[in-house]
Amino acid sequence: MLSPVSWNEDSVHIIEQTRLPDEEVWVDLKTVEQVARAIRILDVRGAPAIGITAAFGLALAARRYEGNDPAELVKEVQQAAKTLAATRPTAVNLFWALSRMQKKLENVAGATIDSLSKRLIDEAQKIRSEDIAYCRAIGKHGGALLPNQGYVLTHCNAGALATGGYGTALGVIRGAVESGKQIHVFADETRPLLQGARLTTWELARDGIEVTLICDNMAGHLMKMGKIDACVVGSDRIAANGDVANKIGTYSVAVLAHRHDIPFYVAAPTSTIDLQLSSGDQIPIEEREASEVTSPRGTRFAPEGINVFNPAFDVTPNELVAAIITEQGVATHPELGAKLEKMVRQAKAELEN
Amino acid sequence: MLSPVSWNEDSVHIIEQTRLPDEEVWVDLKTVEQVARAIRILDVRGAPAIGITAAFGLALAARRYEGNDPAELVKEVQQAAKTLAATRPTAVNLFWALSRMQKKLENVAGATIDSLSKRLIDEAQKIRSEDIAYCRAIGKHGGALLPNQGYVLTHCNAGALATGGYGTALGVIRGAVESGKQIHVFADETRPLLQGARLTTWELARDGIEVTLICDNMAGHLMKMGKIDACVVGSDRIAANGDVANKIGTYSVAVLAHRHDIPFYVAAPTSTIDLQLSSGDQIPIEEREASEVTSPRGTRFAPEGINVFNPAFDVTPNELVAAIITEQGVATHPELGAKLEKMVRQAKAELEN
Repeated sequence: MLSPVSWNEDSVHIIEQTRLPDEEVWVDLKTVEQVARAIRILDVRGAPAIGITAAFGLALAARRYEGNDPAELVKEVQQAAKTLAATRPTAVNLFWALSRMQKKLENVAGATIDSLSKRLIDEAQKIRSEDIAYCRAIGKHGGALLPNQGYVLTHCNAGALATGGYGTALGVIRGAVESGKQIHVFADETRPLLQGARLTTWELARDGIEVTLICDNMAGHLMKMGKIDACVVGSDRIAANGDVANKIGTYSVAVLAHRHDIPFYVAAPTSTIDLQLSSGDQIPIEEREASEVTSPRGTRFAPEGINVFNPAFDVTPNELVAAIITEQGVATHPELGAKLEKMVRQAKAELEN
Repeated sequence: MLSPVSWNEDSVHIIEQTRLPDEEVWVDLKTVEQVARAIRILDVRGAPAIGITAAFGLALAARRYEGNDPAELVKEVQQAAKTLAATRPTAVNLFWALSRMQKKLENVAGATIDSLSKRLIDEAQKIRSEDIAYCRAIGKHGGALLPNQGYVLTHCNAGALATGGYGTALGVIRGAVESGKQIHVFADETRPLLQGARLTTWELARDGIEVTLICDNMAGHLMKMGKIDACVVGSDRIAANGDVANKIGTYSVAVLAHRHDIPFYVAAPTSTIDLQLSSGDQIPIEEREASEVTSPRGTRFAPEGINVFNPAFDVTPNELVAAIITEQGVATHPELGAKLEKMVRQAKAELEN
């Protein structure tokens, strides 16, 4: 199974996603700064994969600690957590993973340095393997919602490359295909960084799943032609009321789906749900460099020096969401928020058992 | 004033728009085949500009005729019209201009070769200068609809570069600015061929009109933020009921504007109205090469050999259109279709006087 991030002999093994689809290059990150940079420049991206990678980043910080003072190791790890937390603001899985990892260092009295770094490596491995299992569960729950035969639109890449493996939105599609359904995917290219064009097409073609690439602005026309049966996307953060932050352009897909009575599904593990935020208005939206818009892949698209607005995410209000699919099951209206809260509680209880 | 096409000593003088904004290159087209190619590859684009260029193409065919038989000249021109009509299917201004030009050859008995080619050159010049005057009238009528101060979203390029000069949608913006209004334009980049990123930003910046570039999928987010006061676009063909064909992605803008109660305006000369078609469903939609999506400006965006769907236009149903602005005035609901028909009749009557 394609997995974009794993632990490999005291380093973090990743596929450099910015190089896809031109080259498939795997590298071993050996410092926290390298891990932070990989997240910042989007060599690792996708909310669950960012969380896993950050967790491995903390394991790396502990592993590289050369002293003999557990309290000092804890400080090193806390410093690493600060560095990693500053990489990207929107995906809550990042903060969730950092916080979960740091809990493993709450009680260090009498522990050896080796046992502490082992705790962190084990926990990061666990976050990764749980994520893969969660994606498979999402695939099963969500796959059941798709038609036996039909066309499914997705935006950005919420696939194996965005998770420990298997994917959330693409997990739903894989789940449907594995259960014998005939699904043809339309992939929005997803400007500015083209995760749909570069990554979704690449990983679906690799799995032999039928995919057609379109520009983001063609989705409405396809829906109007009656060509789309369902939409499924991932998420970077889901507020307590079910409002969904996801890659810029997701909101437009949801509005268009609503107009055409096409179900719009969101697939994400419960670690993406942020019960601290009552609505999506409170989700911080990252703005990125103008050059992503004006010069994608190094080719100039616009006059020099032009003003650019480049938000990386948008928020889809819960009323446009037909269902949120997590590893715990499928949450729908009414009482979507209450159902999400229950799912988060269940997930916590499972982890504590 | 910037004008993308004119008659220049027995050739058709154009700016090669595919080279913008990197280089400003003007060329003289000397054969009908060169003119057809310029339209096909989008060195000339924009419905009104295509019509004007095709008209000059017929003038060129007559001018280059070396024989002495008026009937043979007429045949040459008819052959050229066939070649030019086959370039692009959606913009009706092309067929309108070819038909109007050919009417000038309905009565050739006793005419000299020189007088016949002069008829065609004069008529093409007239189509061009009328178009510029129409754009200015559109700017006056439409400019009055925009707020005194505000943000206006446009899609593709319906500017000077798409017309004889001044523009339709950008004519409305120019009209507002010239009347003292403070307008900031948000320009959709308009994938796949980036007419917004390459052309709209270039021509607005040249005129000192404030413009910010966004990706197509960011418009919905801006509207949700309350940042857009009006949308204005051009059109390639308007059906008798007011359904509007325009650059792919226009429909999505209209749906989003509707959701946010933002007025969505269409600006076009009456030559864009096709009373032969009762609704937009009958408008032929051009599909173009996959490489426009996968390799814009020569840079690969997607894996080799991936399936692509690349429609060049979409149709916005009249119920999403707040007003259609022509040189004759502003047509609104109810009875939008009847008002359009009246405008076409008025325009015809003006030409006949």
